[in-house]
Parts: sequence; C-alpha cells; structure tokens
Amino acid sequence: MDSHAPTPSPARDVPPAFLAALSARFGAQCSMAAAVCAQHGRDEGSLQAPPPAAVVFAESTQDVQDAVRLAAQYGVPVIPYGAGSSLEGHLLAVQGGISIDLGRMNRVLSVNADDLTVTVQPGITRKALNDAIKDTGLFFPIDPGADASIGGMAATRASGTNAVRYGTMRENVLALEVVTASGDVIRTGTRAKKSSAGYDLTRLMVGSEGTLGLFTEVTVRLYPLPEAVSAAICSFPSIEAAVRTVIQTIQLGVPIARVELIDVNAVRMVNAHSKLHLREEPLLLMEFHGSPTGVQEQAEVVQDIAREWGGNAFEWATTPEERTRLWTARHNAYFAAVQSRPGCKAISTDTCVPISRLADCLLDSVAEADASGIPYFLVGHVGDGNFHFGYLIDPDSPDERTRAEQLNHQLVARALRMQGTCTGEHGVGIHKMDFLQEEAGEGAVAMMRAIKQALDPQNILNPGKIFTRPAR
Amino acid sequence: MDSHAPTPSPARDVPPAFLAALSARFGAQCSMAAAVCAQHGRDEGSLQAPPPAAVVFAESTQDVQDAVRLAAQYGVPVIPYGAGSSLEGHLLAVQGGISIDLGRMNRVLSVNADDLTVTVQPGITRKALNDAIKDTGLFFPIDPGADASIGGMAATRASGTNAVRYGTMRENVLALEVVTASGDVIRTGTRAKKSSAGYDLTRLMVGSEGTLGLFTEVTVRLYPLPEAVSAAICSFPSIEAAVRTVIQTIQLGVPIARVELIDVNAVRMVNAHSKLHLREEPLLLMEFHGSPTGVQEQAEVVQDIAREWGGNAFEWATTPEERTRLWTARHNAYFAAVQSRPGCKAISTDTCVPISRLADCLLDSVAEADASGIPYFLVGHVGDGNFHFGYLIDPDSPDERTRAEQLNHQLVARALRMQGTCTGEHGVGIHKMDFLQEEAGEGAVAMMRAIKQALDPQNILNPGKIFTRPAR
Repeated sequence: MDSHAPTPSPARDVPPAFLAALSARFGAQCSMAAAVCAQHGRDEGSLQAPPPAAVVFAESTQDVQDAVRLAAQYGVPVIPYGAGSSLEGHLLAVQGGISIDLGRMNRVLSVNADDLTVTVQPGITRKALNDAIKDTGLFFPIDPGADASIGGMAATRASGTNAVRYGTMRENVLALEVVTASGDVIRTGTRAKKSSAGYDLTRLMVGSEGTLGLFTEVTVRLYPLPEAVSAAICSFPSIEAAVRTVIQTIQLGVPIARVELIDVNAVRMVNAHSKLHLREEPLLLMEFHGSPTGVQEQAEVVQDIAREWGGNAFEWATTPEERTRLWTARHNAYFAAVQSRPGCKAISTDTCVPISRLADCLLDSVAEADASGIPYFLVGHVGDGNFHFGYLIDPDSPDERTRAEQLNHQLVARALRMQGTCTGEHGVGIHKMDFLQEEAGEGAVAMMRAIKQALDPQNILNPGKIFTRPAR
Repeated sequence: MDSHAPTPSPARDVPPAFLAALSARFGAQCSMAAAVCAQHGRDEGSLQAPPPAAVVFAESTQDVQDAVRLAAQYGVPVIPYGAGSSLEGHLLAVQGGISIDLGRMNRVLSVNADDLTVTVQPGITRKALNDAIKDTGLFFPIDPGADASIGGMAATRASGTNAVRYGTMRENVLALEVVTASGDVIRTGTRAKKSSAGYDLTRLMVGSEGTLGLFTEVTVRLYPLPEAVSAAICSFPSIEAAVRTVIQTIQLGVPIARVELIDVNAVRMVNAHSKLHLREEPLLLMEFHGSPTGVQEQAEVVQDIAREWGGNAFEWATTPEERTRLWTARHNAYFAAVQSRPGCKAISTDTCVPISRLADCLLDSVAEADASGIPYFLVGHVGDGNFHFGYLIDPDSPDERTRAEQLNHQLVARALRMQGTCTGEHGVGIHKMDFLQEEAGEGAVAMMRAIKQALDPQNILNPGKIFTRPAR
C-alpha cells in the first residue's frame, strides 16, 4: 500500500470568469500573486502540490459566504487556511481551486468568564487567544505545539501536551458557526456545557478538515488558571522505564496536566537548538496543576513510581520563566530536529494506542527505526498513548522517503493491531487516506463519504482530503 | 407552537409477509403478543402511540442485522429498545414497525482495566456494568438516575449526576459497533483515548436516538474508584442561595463530583416516599471525590461559599450505606413525586444553560410554575446548568397538559435566549421536535435531515423522531 503519495486527482478547471468575479467582489482582499498562492499551497508537512489559483483574505462571515457561493456557482474547490501549521497536506490544492485565508478573522467576539467560555473568530491563534484573556484568570489549555489557529485546531481535532488532563478539541469546542457548501450559515451547539439536542453537528464538524464546512466562529471552553503549577524533568535509564512510569501514573488516575516523552535523539537536538543542558537520556517532562497540596500529592505519587523504574530525582521548574523555557524547548523539538540535518524534511508519525499497549508499540517501533539507519527523533504525549516519530529524510532521496514511509506504515499497522489509531491529533489530510481506510474499514469510510456527498454534493469543500471520492 | 403532540405521521403498513418472515427467522425470539408489544411501545414519558407490530429479542449482532435486513426489504420501521427508561417518546412506534429488544445482549465483552475501558453489549444496564467490574477498582460514572441500558444511554447522549466531573456519554463513549440501515456492520472509533482519523462517527451516533443505526457493542471509559468519597447535604434559605453557591463553586474550578439541587417540593415528596427527615428547605446534595486531602480541600471551599449564602452546616454521609441511601432517595425523586399525586403523569423539562445564567433561568421559571397552580417539583444537575421541572398533571385534564406544556415552552424559550439548550440529557424524541427546530434553526436541522437521508434513505430507523422528515 502506498500511503505517502497524494492520490492523483485531476485539478479542476478554475474558469477565468470565476477569477474575474472573485476579483470584482474582493478587490485587494483577493490575490493571485504567485508568491501568495505558493505560500497558501503548502503546510508544515513534507508533501507538495501545485498552488491554489487565488487567495481570498476573508474579513467577515459574509466574505466567506460570498467566496463559497461564487465557488459553488463555478464548481471550484475552496480550501480554508488558518495558520498554515498542518502536517498532513491539508492545505494542498490537490484538485486546484482557491484558498480562503481566515487569518484576518482573528477577533475575540465574547469572553464569558463566568461561564468559562469564549467565542472567537477562527483565525485567532491559541497564543493570541491566551494573551487576550490573560486578565480573566482563565486559560485555553489545548496546546498542539505550533501556534495554530483555533479554527484550524478545530478542523483537525487537535490536542497536544495538555490533552491528558483537559481533553482535545473534541471535548473543548462547544459551538460553531459554519459556512456550508452552499454558502449558507448554520450554528451548531450552544454555550450550554452539555446537550442532547439532535445530531452532534459540532463534533461532526470538529475534525472534518474543511471538507464539510468553513468555521467562521468557534466557542471553546476555558479553565481557571490553576492555583499552583509545577513542572519537572525526570530522566530514565531507558525509554521503557519512562513509559512504564507513565502507564502506571495514568492507571492510578493521577490528574497529571502534561507528561511528555523525549527520546535521547530529541534531547540532543533540543540541547543543541535551545542551548540547554538536559541530561542525554530519555526524559519525561511533566506538569502538575492544582492546589498547592494537590500538586504536591500528585508529584509524590509520580516520583515514587519513577523511582521504582530507575528514574532520577525530579528537577523542578517552579517559576513561570523556567517553565516557559522548558516548554518552548519541547515545542521547538521539531525545528531543532529539522536543523540537525540541514536540508532534511521530517515525516511525522502520529499513532495513538490504548495506554496498556504503549510500551510494546513504542519499543518495537524504536527498534525498527534504529535498524533503518534513518535519523529520527521521538516525542510523545504519552499520557494519552500518543507519540510522534520524526523521520528526517533527504527530500531528494526517493529511497529514504520510501523507507521512512515504510516505517510509518509498519508503525500504523502495529497501532491498529493494538486497537489504536493512525492519527491521534494531526488528522488525515492526504497523507493518511490509506491508513484511515485500514483503520476504519470500508463500511465506516463509505458512511463518511455518504455524509460528505450529502453535505457537499459538488465536492467543492477541500476536496481530495480524508478519503478519495468514489467514482460517480 | 404545539410542542407536546407527536407530529402526526401515518403508521406504515407492516406486511403480513414480513411478519411471517420475521417469525420464520426468529421463532420464539419474536413475539406478537399484545402485552409484549404494548410494553415495548411506551417509555417513562407521558406520550402514547399504538404499539409496534412485533418485538424481536435480539441475542447477537447477527440477529440485529437479520432483523434490520428484513425490515429494509419490506420498508418497515425498526425501533431499538434497551431498558425502556427514555422520557421523550423515543420508543413509541409512531410510524408503526417493530421493536428490537436488545436486553438479552447484556454481556461484558472485554474489561481492559489497564486501559480504563470496557466493551459491552448494548443491553447491559449501568448498574449491572458497575456490578460486573467492581473487582477491578474501576467504575463507570455516568448515572442518569434510571438503571438505563448502556446502549440507550449512548443513543440519547445521557448524563446525570456525575457528569459535572466525568462528562456525559459524549465524552465517555470511545467506540461503537453499529448495524446500519442496510443491515451492515460498521465500527466507529478505537480504544485509543483520542483520534483525528476522519469524521467523528462515534459522536454522530451518540445522541442519534436510534435514527442512524443500532448499537451492538459499546466501548466506554472507566475511572479509578476515588480513594476518598464524601457526600454532604446542605440546606439553604432559598433556591437562589443554593444556586449561587453552585455557580461560584463551578467558576472556581472545584472538581466537585456531584452537586444536585432539590427544591422544597421535591424534599417533601422524597421524605414521604423514602422515609427520610431531610430539612424542608432547598437542598444541595454534593459528593466529593479524590484523595483524602483533596476531598477535604474541596469541601472546605464549598462550605465557605455556602456559608456566605446562608447555607446551613454540611451534614456528612461518609459511609457507603449512608451515601447509597441519599442517592437512592435522589434518584427516586421522580417516583416520589408521581406518588404524591395519585394517578398523575409527570411532564419533565430538561433545559441546560450556561452556568452564569442558571439563577436567572431557574428563578423566573420557578415563579411561573408557582403562579400556574400546577403541582411540580424541581431537581437539577445544577453544576452543569441542567435542571428538571416535573409538572404533575392529571392525564385526563387536557387543560392541565396544555398549561404544563406552556410552562415548558416558556422555560425552553428562556433557556434558548440565554444560549442554552432545550435538552441537556433526555434527548428530543417526539416531545421536543419543535424545540429542536427553535434551538438549532432551520439550516442546522436541514443538515441533520440530509445526514439522515444519506444514511437511512428508506427512513426505517426509528422514524418520526428528532425531526419530522420533509415531504419527498
């Protein structure tokens, strides 16, 4: 199975009349400059496709509606663009069409601190959101590393380091405003914390990767800033020892806020990139949130477990500055890794398995990666059973790409045998379409296709992503 | 708007040839006895319809598939039946057809204690599930009061008293096996804690009320039994004082496990029914889960808040027996209420609002209910902003029903103005179809209909629920 090449889908015609109509409606908000189109036709992943024919910089829901209506009239694909930080080719114009950049729709529309909710436009990034609400005593915890847009995070069902405690976008998006394939606007969900009112359109939209609608408003949950926060590093004699510590922590129900694995390769890369002096051993990077007593209790339990597995004493980072430095280093692991092999591209894996299978899945895959000779690093949101290999390939070496994709495929097959998933948080895009088929099975994918067909009969919303369309 | 009458939908023919084929396939597993059909054609709500033509007692996924295939062949509606505890007419055969009773599919298929998951057949009830796993040190927290089936709870996106801490079925169903409208089987989700693999079919199915598929396996999350549990009662001089205490508790992020409001009417009914001597004032019934220190910390915070609002000292129930007695009394509030007015029927409301609006929504609705002269009680999962009035009407008095439905409608309209939902946990069924339309709007309901049409083109899966079908 060839899972790395975009399924060949003929780019559809973008009629000049459509582009003229777009220009007439949007003026300077529409660009066909080659550099602008190129920038909107790629993401942080390793795949490539010809760029979109134009970029519309939407400034309002009405803008999005008008662009989609024009596209529907001419049967032209539209691809929503947030911060460009997706990894699986979500933004690539594999069937041609236009990009709708939502970056200018970046306002906070209403902070409801008393309800622990906020409604934002989709283009605001998670850091900007947290900055905007910092005086409320609340925060938005979902942290995928990249400073992604909230709309993009909703569209890929993102999660990241804090998900082990606070959940993913699945649990934290309460309501959406969505522009549908016809250019109409619907609202899904309410600001109530729970609801049984009909089909869960919010959850259907979250993770739909721009294929069912474009989000123009997103309401998410917020959390009180914890009274006490402590971060700690603990190094281990082996990856297994680190992972076993995590498994027991989760099984005991310790409400740890973050628990990240960093393998020795990644530690070296991070040390070099971020001028740190972390011990060159597999590390767990942890964070505890709660009352001062609660944080202390949690940390003691985890320290006891770590000690049994040969972990070293915790090194604490208690000031906000130390913690920021540590998490910045973790978040820069990807860039640190790419810099470690000049000119390379990283192929990221994203499997997630039930916690009891984490050690088996990880260790077998480490052995395979070591045997392959391809440089790699390994980081993971291991409290959720989710981890990422980054295979650092020479983009000019088809052989390296093939071998890396082979490793990825073996890893996914292993995760699926263990009742896990091919993607914990990055989404399918064009890179994992075959994996989705393996994971979900023909019947479930057929159901997804039927939903797509029902909601987007012209197949203009980010076509060629998640699954290929059957011949009609 | 007339929200209480089932939308008239002509019962479809159930051809004798279909019933003969059903009998031939299922033998003694199929009953057409009037009493059996009548029992399967009603729920705990106040609405009525003619019973289904037959009941199939499914014992396997294959049984469900075969029954659905026969129904599809003859175009006959099928209605899944769990424990019969729904409240909104979900089980009523408003368009004729047959009931598929899943009560015999009540096995635990696999306990994965190390992963904090369990896979069960849909007919097992929540109490039976907790009984079956009691030696694992884990529990399944979702507790809607009634001893509902897990399949039924998934189908209505149920929640209940523990949801404020542990979430609803939305957050706790990981994976499903589903028999589709064609009788095929698909699997949605995996046992991984999170996933971004395509459309979230699990969440689409959860809350679909039997209209998109019949669940034949359900994988849910489990939680470690808390090290310490304490329950407390606190009485207040007014409903407002009780509710303000709850609002502050939630806004401070106290991870309270249960916080239930019981109004003075319900207290009197419960005292009479359960031979208790609760103080005849508005009460909060609370439960704290955690480490011994954590539980103490939480309780102290809430006690401080309660004191400020004039709450009396907490009365503690620390032994399991005392707690069980308390929660049983709470769960029996509905039956206690119905007994308080012999021959009456209860019409339950189920609004849920953002926590900051809870006091306003509740107090205005209490004033309206008091003014109406209709006997009522009020209980609520107030930590989630969800509460239930039960209007105790004389079923032979059309006037009382009309006035009660009027109160319900005013309450729903108020909740929607406050960005809440018409149903926090009971579902739409046939009772809230008009409310759903008001809440979600025409466009969103049209999207739900399009999905229904795509996945069940013959409209045989529990037809006439959630929304009426447009003319074709």
